[in-house]
Amino acid sequence: MSLPRFGRLTVDNINPNVKAAKYAVRGELATKAEEYRVRLEKGDKSLPFDSVIFANIGNPQQLDQKPITFFRQVLSLLEYPPLLENEDVLKNGLGYKQDVIDRAKRLLKDIRSVGAYSQSHGSPAVRASVAKFIEQRDGFPANPNDIYLSGGASSGVNTLLNVMCEGPKTGILVPIPQYPLYTATLSVLDAQCVPYHLEEEKAWGTEVDAIRASVAKAKADGIDVRAIVVINPGNPTGASLSPEDIKSVLDLAVDENLVVIADEVYQTNVFVGEFTSFKKRLRELQKAVPGRYDHVELASLHSVSKGMVGECGHRGGYFELVGFHPDVAAEIYKFISIMLCPPVIGQCLVELMVNPPKEGEPSYELYQKEYTGIRDGLHKRALALYEAFKKMEGVECQEPQGAMYLFPTITLPPKAVEAAKAKNRFPDEFYCLRLLDATGVCVVPGSGFGQKEGTFHFRTTFLAPGTDWVERIVKFHAEFMAEFK
Amino acid sequence: MSLPRFGRLTVDNINPNVKAAKYAVRGELATKAEEYRVRLEKGDKSLPFDSVIFANIGNPQQLDQKPITFFRQVLSLLEYPPLLENEDVLKNGLGYKQDVIDRAKRLLKDIRSVGAYSQSHGSPAVRASVAKFIEQRDGFPANPNDIYLSGGASSGVNTLLNVMCEGPKTGILVPIPQYPLYTATLSVLDAQCVPYHLEEEKAWGTEVDAIRASVAKAKADGIDVRAIVVINPGNPTGASLSPEDIKSVLDLAVDENLVVIADEVYQTNVFVGEFTSFKKRLRELQKAVPGRYDHVELASLHSVSKGMVGECGHRGGYFELVGFHPDVAAEIYKFISIMLCPPVIGQCLVELMVNPPKEGEPSYELYQKEYTGIRDGLHKRALALYEAFKKMEGVECQEPQGAMYLFPTITLPPKAVEAAKAKNRFPDEFYCLRLLDATGVCVVPGSGFGQKEGTFHFRTTFLAPGTDWVERIVKFHAEFMAEFK
Repeated sequence: MSLPRFGRLTVDNINPNVKAAKYAVRGELATKAEEYRVRLEKGDKSLPFDSVIFANIGNPQQLDQKPITFFRQVLSLLEYPPLLENEDVLKNGLGYKQDVIDRAKRLLKDIRSVGAYSQSHGSPAVRASVAKFIEQRDGFPANPNDIYLSGGASSGVNTLLNVMCEGPKTGILVPIPQYPLYTATLSVLDAQCVPYHLEEEKAWGTEVDAIRASVAKAKADGIDVRAIVVINPGNPTGASLSPEDIKSVLDLAVDENLVVIADEVYQTNVFVGEFTSFKKRLRELQKAVPGRYDHVELASLHSVSKGMVGECGHRGGYFELVGFHPDVAAEIYKFISIMLCPPVIGQCLVELMVNPPKEGEPSYELYQKEYTGIRDGLHKRALALYEAFKKMEGVECQEPQGAMYLFPTITLPPKAVEAAKAKNRFPDEFYCLRLLDATGVCVVPGSGFGQKEGTFHFRTTFLAPGTDWVERIVKFHAEFMAEFK
Repeated sequence: MSLPRFGRLTVDNINPNVKAAKYAVRGELATKAEEYRVRLEKGDKSLPFDSVIFANIGNPQQLDQKPITFFRQVLSLLEYPPLLENEDVLKNGLGYKQDVIDRAKRLLKDIRSVGAYSQSHGSPAVRASVAKFIEQRDGFPANPNDIYLSGGASSGVNTLLNVMCEGPKTGILVPIPQYPLYTATLSVLDAQCVPYHLEEEKAWGTEVDAIRASVAKAKADGIDVRAIVVINPGNPTGASLSPEDIKSVLDLAVDENLVVIADEVYQTNVFVGEFTSFKKRLRELQKAVPGRYDHVELASLHSVSKGMVGECGHRGGYFELVGFHPDVAAEIYKFISIMLCPPVIGQCLVELMVNPPKEGEPSYELYQKEYTGIRDGLHKRALALYEAFKKMEGVECQEPQGAMYLFPTITLPPKAVEAAKAKNRFPDEFYCLRLLDATGVCVVPGSGFGQKEGTFHFRTTFLAPGTDWVERIVKFHAEFMAEFK
């Protein structure tokens, strides 16, 4: 009989691909911020701030964003359907409108119970609503069988990359800066992230020539580059692509034979210009130039977590497959089946998001008021933050265009860069740690998203209410710059 | 400019590990059953049955199991907290009890909104409740920081296997027959399933000598066997392990230096004997034999999908880590962070499951009535099905002990085996397809779970109401046996 040994699993023998993955949005800074929050809650008076501001993550309802009434009223009925036996109390006692009641009944007819597993790719009625929404948004047909509901868009990305990545030589083009879900997932899958840099000077635009150069370099290294990820509107940059930009990505996809993964979760968070979906643009081009774009494979993702919905905790989302081989789609279906199905109440929230109250319906007025209130609030906060950044020494920031983030450049004094090195930190990481320790404001360093060598950034959401926390940043920044002058 | 080619992704160039994965519970039979259901719904009269019985999957609320009132009332308030401003209407108009209202308020205080992301491993208050539940169940302390909430137990298993599997030489012991989540996930991870057979003649018990033999064989093949999966009570077998059985698995874990993954999602579905958790047994042994069991690493999983809760669609679950190295736990935390957090409403349901109304509280009586009603109903149905199987020619079935399934052996006539071969089917798969086509009853062939060479089984849940469908099976079986005599 052998003796027991200590630690069958050690950090040196677990999955090296998991170990290699990095995910800064919930990394050390976020953990430290949570520790500060708990200390403050317990009455600790030793910190130099009285609240923690979680500007590290797009989590609107953790801050002060209220859920949309129509959505939540329907969900409350789905959770406890016997309420529907008391329509009178619901309407007169609790102010539920008829369309709330009708919608709950319609969804229950399809799903039976939010406690039952649905089909692996989601309830048929919800997928039908999503297809209808896409049709109305784009002006081109969509098929419910091509819609796959998912537990947030993250889970959809995980599925797509798992199926697409053949091995260590598979390359996926990922924008830099990017949302670290992509690089982390590629690490776990032991596939190659092929970075392409967004152009900060051109409002974080997508430069196709730069992408072609990245593809050529990767190919020369023996990488099978097979897909391109585009985040539109951008995270962390907020940049929104024009129809012309989208065409150039699709041209590249045709020329280089790439699958397009369009992460469009911020499609309603657009302040400047108008959102154009990749699906719409693809269909337009397929019509305009017969033949050339026929075989483009596109997967586009959406979510209930962002937009004016902001229901992150419900983990609802979907992706649409366009032009995928049916055998590949069948493998995607099998893959998601292993996890059974996405949360059913989250699926219902997807349905409500894509099919909100319409003009003339009882809940429309309130819905519209809440929706525009959230939208205007986000824009106002974005502008306030932008104005503050403009005034800060050594900080440059692109005008807010969309999403939920600003991603300013910070020019750090050489002494600060040295001080960071001495502590074995990236300079922007050093800056963000100091910011958190001094002010309680938690942002994510640019190094967590990727950035051009020698440049430094941080990402902050503009979700937190009030302007006090912006002032905390301004004050800290001035002191930091003075300290390392 | 190159010409567009058809299909960048084909079934021959996608992830070969995904392609190799098999998941029969939602495979061809389930898809066909769903097609039949849709045809019947559309009024198709050409089928030889008038309803489809989904006995392929443990999905109680898709059949007639009602959710537990207390749980769903609380969830309705969490979805629409403004209801709490009308306590009077809730109580007098809708029959909500005070403890429902109080619980919702308490949970909201911690989570803020079910629409907000929680911590990656779940809300602190929910994890605290889970730890308290484990303490009360086992009589040994549990730490909330060792609890990781997950989107159902499946997602927990996925996390654990992802982190544990170092490469293609990593071996994980998996019982045969097993729930195919394990083999499918190991396929996707390109790790080795090291099978060990359960002993049908001994009520599907776990025979440690057989496991030792499997380990020895795998080691001889150069496999690094590092963990053992035990499903207790068993799926698909329903078998429940005695404290002595659990000790022998823990002894094996010590001797062979294995991590134990205890899938305990059926812990309340026990008809015969009593459930003992691996954690409890481990702590008892650590106390009784100082030193020997000190370094056992155990991960135990639970879920809201099974038991008398049956809330599959909510995707709630948790796992507890015992004895894991903190650095490994940190990697697990990072891994789950990439997907942000499990559904928050599902987390709240975990809290309700582990902390139901207690004697003397307003909702207790109804809760208790509903809970025992479901439990007794399941037992009654299991026995009825068992009695029917006993009378069927060539069918043998172990007495129902727990879980939600029976897994009878079928002795198929040689002519049926030949007919199956001619159609390129496993014999039990052939049988199950014929059963579905003739009766609308969908079960899963034993080949989907693994079985000893030359034996044939199928797994059926005992969730469907009534006895009509059992009679359909009996009638079909007699005709099938006559046809292939």
